[in-house]
Amino acid sequence: MPSQRLANVASSPVRDLLALIERPEVISFAGGLPAPELFDVEGWRAAFDTVLSGAGARRHLQYAPTEGDLRLRGHIAARTTRRGLPTRAEDLLVTTGSQQGLTLVAAALLDPGATVVVEEPTYLAALQCFSMAGARIVPVPSDEQGVDPAALAEVFERERPELLYLVPTFANPTGRTLGRARRERVAELAERYGVWIVEDDPYGELRYRGAALEPVASLSERVIYLGSLSKIGAPGLRLGWVRTPRELRSALVVAKQAADLHTSTIDQAAAAEYLSVADLDAHVRGLCAAYRERRDTMLGLLPRVLPDGAVWSDPDGGMFVWVTLPGGVDTARVLPVALRHDVAFVPGAPFFAGRAEPATLRLSFSSTSPERISEGMRRLGEAVLSAGVAA
Amino acid sequence: MPSQRLANVASSPVRDLLALIERPEVISFAGGLPAPELFDVEGWRAAFDTVLSGAGARRHLQYAPTEGDLRLRGHIAARTTRRGLPTRAEDLLVTTGSQQGLTLVAAALLDPGATVVVEEPTYLAALQCFSMAGARIVPVPSDEQGVDPAALAEVFERERPELLYLVPTFANPTGRTLGRARRERVAELAERYGVWIVEDDPYGELRYRGAALEPVASLSERVIYLGSLSKIGAPGLRLGWVRTPRELRSALVVAKQAADLHTSTIDQAAAAEYLSVADLDAHVRGLCAAYRERRDTMLGLLPRVLPDGAVWSDPDGGMFVWVTLPGGVDTARVLPVALRHDVAFVPGAPFFAGRAEPATLRLSFSSTSPERISEGMRRLGEAVLSAGVAA
Repeated sequence: MPSQRLANVASSPVRDLLALIERPEVISFAGGLPAPELFDVEGWRAAFDTVLSGAGARRHLQYAPTEGDLRLRGHIAARTTRRGLPTRAEDLLVTTGSQQGLTLVAAALLDPGATVVVEEPTYLAALQCFSMAGARIVPVPSDEQGVDPAALAEVFERERPELLYLVPTFANPTGRTLGRARRERVAELAERYGVWIVEDDPYGELRYRGAALEPVASLSERVIYLGSLSKIGAPGLRLGWVRTPRELRSALVVAKQAADLHTSTIDQAAAAEYLSVADLDAHVRGLCAAYRERRDTMLGLLPRVLPDGAVWSDPDGGMFVWVTLPGGVDTARVLPVALRHDVAFVPGAPFFAGRAEPATLRLSFSSTSPERISEGMRRLGEAVLSAGVAA
Repeated sequence: MPSQRLANVASSPVRDLLALIERPEVISFAGGLPAPELFDVEGWRAAFDTVLSGAGARRHLQYAPTEGDLRLRGHIAARTTRRGLPTRAEDLLVTTGSQQGLTLVAAALLDPGATVVVEEPTYLAALQCFSMAGARIVPVPSDEQGVDPAALAEVFERERPELLYLVPTFANPTGRTLGRARRERVAELAERYGVWIVEDDPYGELRYRGAALEPVASLSERVIYLGSLSKIGAPGLRLGWVRTPRELRSALVVAKQAADLHTSTIDQAAAAEYLSVADLDAHVRGLCAAYRERRDTMLGLLPRVLPDGAVWSDPDGGMFVWVTLPGGVDTARVLPVALRHDVAFVPGAPFFAGRAEPATLRLSFSSTSPERISEGMRRLGEAVLSAGVAA
């Protein structure tokens, strides 16, 4: 009864899993959630109160332009420019989270049967989104430096795709970052083959060591850059944005109209107020300090709790560590054992568009305190041991 | 460069028009906007303040389940049940405005080439949305009692469509309401031919005379009912909902995940709080009293300002009056004259999926005070006269 294009798309196993592990005794490394104890609740409360108390209050409750709140777009443009990507307010389309940005790009660019190239593994909900658009997804291998440019060149030559989807900085699920030289190479390839790149960058500001890399979008006009307040502000507001190449702007605005007319006026106004008043840079520094400690705790314990032969990524930022267990285990079969030990992770297979590597799993360190991470790592070690995983 | 399916979809002429007429001296009957001076600003301010001050504040800034806030869904379910449509919280999926409900239904039910039947004329953004899904749209004539059941039966027999889209109560753009006998007939036809009905009901509570009719959804299981807070609360929050038949539920939830993960957590929490504390029924009675006066003012003046031969709908509620001018005029050519007279309306042609009737136009009375309506009607009469329209 559902449409063909939906029949091939499963509900997100991550979201289904999150629903299962709401027992408070479970230490969950499964979600990709920011730490709620670090939310600037008072800052947000004050921002909503200000915009609903002032002269513009009625305007903030009314229908609004599809492109988004101009004051908010001005703040985001200035922030994006400071991060090395020159941007004007009119280049930005505010979206209902950057997830919506993906859907709009799919609607605006992909006809059924279009080819989308992704790094392997990649963000699950992006795979869902492209599948729903009826696209054919072609994976390209990645390593510790991100997607492999030589393999990408081959695929571009062979497949002539419409779109390349990348999370170049602190990727979901791997935590990996595309290196500087590769960024240049990927941008060149996109130009040469006339492929649009979607650069999905929700984590880029959460860097715990090393110097920031320039966005791929600063290297080519063929990049659609997606940003978000979810990881640096609060995800509950569902505020993201698309920095749109000029020739795609009107198509994306039409897609946005059809999707939800516009993003919440009041949330946009509150975010504009927040960005005027709060020191988001200081807030992000605080997030980075806390997440760095969590990352270090997790990475410090992994060698002690996992069996010989296990390997994992060493992320410079973001929220995720990507683990491969030894001995040809399927982590989907380790998960029930882990849940009996009151610890959770996400099995890696759903993040693959092509041939899955079932021995992989994703751990998130962002929403768990260092103490709970220590206890959770101990439980994970026990679970892996009791599931019989060995090199 | 944009996808084929988007290449056929224009930006909404209504939204484009709204951008043009922001000059304060223009009296606009063009938008379908609720009156901002009637927003319960203090009630909404207090609701946001409460949910961001309480123990749950951090939760209201975090990611949340795709289906929506359970407290909000409980309130909506109770309200829907009181209106004659028995509904449980778990039947509801909260959407980012009811516009998103349309997009999700299209994603979940329509493959490219699927057939969608609409009453003629109908809501413009629904046409956009079905076009973007690659559907073939087949219009069915309507009259003062709404869609014509005999014509509908013929089209169902001939076309075997997937979906029928209706705004059965105080329709956009006509203001017309589908009569009771026709509701039963339409529900029967949907059952017999296995067609899904989308009942889009944003205006149903804004009734100025006569008794409420039961929702079509109360007459058949084959109805996907869309509701919204936009017209009775505040549109800026972008809060709508889909009452989903059981067999479509999981498909719609998957489509919602891909669209934006979930609707703004904080807006949902504030709305749940508002519905707990405020007397929305009393607020709606206030809206109805104000809008009734505006409707009466407009309908009282139309015979005086329009030339002989003009006809218009006589809506029992909602926001719109649908006018047909005499003499074979194209209202798209009257609009520039009207704008020179500082008055605006929406030409009717874009609301037609089939052969347009260019002599039609849509007037909205909801967001203009009775005094301004009087002045605006005077200007409209002058504009129509100076454009040379005559019987």
